[in-house]
Amino acid sequence: MESPAYNFPDVNKILQAADRIKHHINKTPVLTSHSINAAFHCEIYFKCENFQKVGAFKARGATNAIFLLDNSSLVNGVATHSSGNHAQALSWAASLRKAKAFIVMPSNSSKVKVEAVKNYLGTITFCKPTLEAREATLAKVIAETGAIEIHPYNDLRIIAGQATAAKELIEEIPALDILMAPVGGGGLLSGTALSARYFSPKTRVIAAEPEQANDAFLSFTQKKFIPSVNPNTIADGLRTSLGTLTYPIILDNVHQIVTVSEKSIVMAMRFIWERMKILIEPSAAVPFAAILEKKVAVSKMKIGIILSGGNVDLDKLPWITKK
Amino acid sequence: MESPAYNFPDVNKILQAADRIKHHINKTPVLTSHSINAAFHCEIYFKCENFQKVGAFKARGATNAIFLLDNSSLVNGVATHSSGNHAQALSWAASLRKAKAFIVMPSNSSKVKVEAVKNYLGTITFCKPTLEAREATLAKVIAETGAIEIHPYNDLRIIAGQATAAKELIEEIPALDILMAPVGGGGLLSGTALSARYFSPKTRVIAAEPEQANDAFLSFTQKKFIPSVNPNTIADGLRTSLGTLTYPIILDNVHQIVTVSEKSIVMAMRFIWERMKILIEPSAAVPFAAILEKKVAVSKMKIGIILSGGNVDLDKLPWITKK
Repeated sequence: MESPAYNFPDVNKILQAADRIKHHINKTPVLTSHSINAAFHCEIYFKCENFQKVGAFKARGATNAIFLLDNSSLVNGVATHSSGNHAQALSWAASLRKAKAFIVMPSNSSKVKVEAVKNYLGTITFCKPTLEAREATLAKVIAETGAIEIHPYNDLRIIAGQATAAKELIEEIPALDILMAPVGGGGLLSGTALSARYFSPKTRVIAAEPEQANDAFLSFTQKKFIPSVNPNTIADGLRTSLGTLTYPIILDNVHQIVTVSEKSIVMAMRFIWERMKILIEPSAAVPFAAILEKKVAVSKMKIGIILSGGNVDLDKLPWITKK
Repeated sequence: MESPAYNFPDVNKILQAADRIKHHINKTPVLTSHSINAAFHCEIYFKCENFQKVGAFKARGATNAIFLLDNSSLVNGVATHSSGNHAQALSWAASLRKAKAFIVMPSNSSKVKVEAVKNYLGTITFCKPTLEAREATLAKVIAETGAIEIHPYNDLRIIAGQATAAKELIEEIPALDILMAPVGGGGLLSGTALSARYFSPKTRVIAAEPEQANDAFLSFTQKKFIPSVNPNTIADGLRTSLGTLTYPIILDNVHQIVTVSEKSIVMAMRFIWERMKILIEPSAAVPFAAILEKKVAVSKMKIGIILSGGNVDLDKLPWITKK
């Protein structure tokens, strides 16, 4: 899964990634809420990756990876397994180069996500909803097509791309006391932590994770890699375990990982919808949920939060129970 | 209902209003959607008054009216009848001057809106849900308190305040071919049309209205004032009829009024939520619904749309049927 041609995301790799993708992605806005700041006695700066291409930060990493490939490498397309935003992002980014994207999706993927991948012209192969089936099916697709695998997070090109969100936020809002991101596979978090280290070294990086998918919390606090087993959380982007590349970057560069309840995630999501009038997906609400739960001391602090995405199924909102 | 001390909103009145309110309201962002523009072969610039204070453009007019009053005039507070965004806006704007706001609300107002007015420290008097009861109750409240009435739309100070939204949009995006706003009582529309006349005279102003509350359409096309009678539309901000002050300004300065179905309003609302990741209320979706219905020819045009507000009851979304 490593990318031998692309080395560790040092400061130059992140600067190059930002330059490489800038004409393709959105420089997303940073929003604040007077009422939220007044309620928590702090300044929170929300980096709105829900307004990013394909509705999530994943467009950054996918674009960086795709544009690092030359035309001859792209001739057979790219491939991944994903039921979520990376599937859309890779399909979209591949289309920018007129390359094919082969997406392995579990058969229980939501209709909305399947339609989104089709909309970006991805070629879908369905498989059983297990990690084994996903990996086996992807191997088969790659064998048949000759496509190049672009892993959702355990790829240094992806990490460098995701790092550009925090870089933009730090450039726009200097001297943050705290920078928060959610953690699933760790692509966004490791990139965020590296950008903080390079561009704002006094900023504390705090990750937030659902209690019910707390592999990163356990791996971080126990200093040994502990994958999650069939985690069940509404934050569907955060069900994956850390990777062999993201885990050591997180161990070295993140200051703290906190966990939050499912109830807090839904409360935080709804709170941001109501107060800020923006759509965010459950995964994006996880850092703010940590503030609601007082897991992070924010009083008088200047806090950046990466709102990771806004792709929600509007027919199934967690606070509305259809009977 | 006229404001004798405040004359017709000429260009100076609008410039003064903009200057008067600028430190209190948000200069709201203008957003675009690549996918919407590609789908309709045009450039649409959405002026996001859903991000305005209290979640709607109404904060502009209310602030202008409140700050035009001296301290002695404010000593007994201000009053209005409104079940919607003006109630919140007036309560909020009054609180900026530490003045009281007396709000007459129909007894069937949604809990969300009642809570919002209370949140901004408005004093609520409930009445029967008829126009007669609202006006009679307001007269009683004013007689008892000595508060000054600030009408939601039929007030030249309110119109000048609402005009500042279009003024900001025109300054940020010059040379619009078309400028669209929804029409209910006509405060936003008359202000929008005046700003277009003064600051962008080549721009065509097109209003959109629900078919089921089409008093402005009828009054405009038949050139005689025709009020709506118990209109029933999901666009709850647009159920009111034009006023004696807004109607003549609209007749003189608006180029076209089109109507849209309830189904289109819901489709337009959901479309904007999904594509742009922002919350807008049904009334705000009405101009875009007219584009969906092809009631306005937009191909190759540069179009501004005032998204009037984002106050929705998240427990009751029109595309989710609770059984």
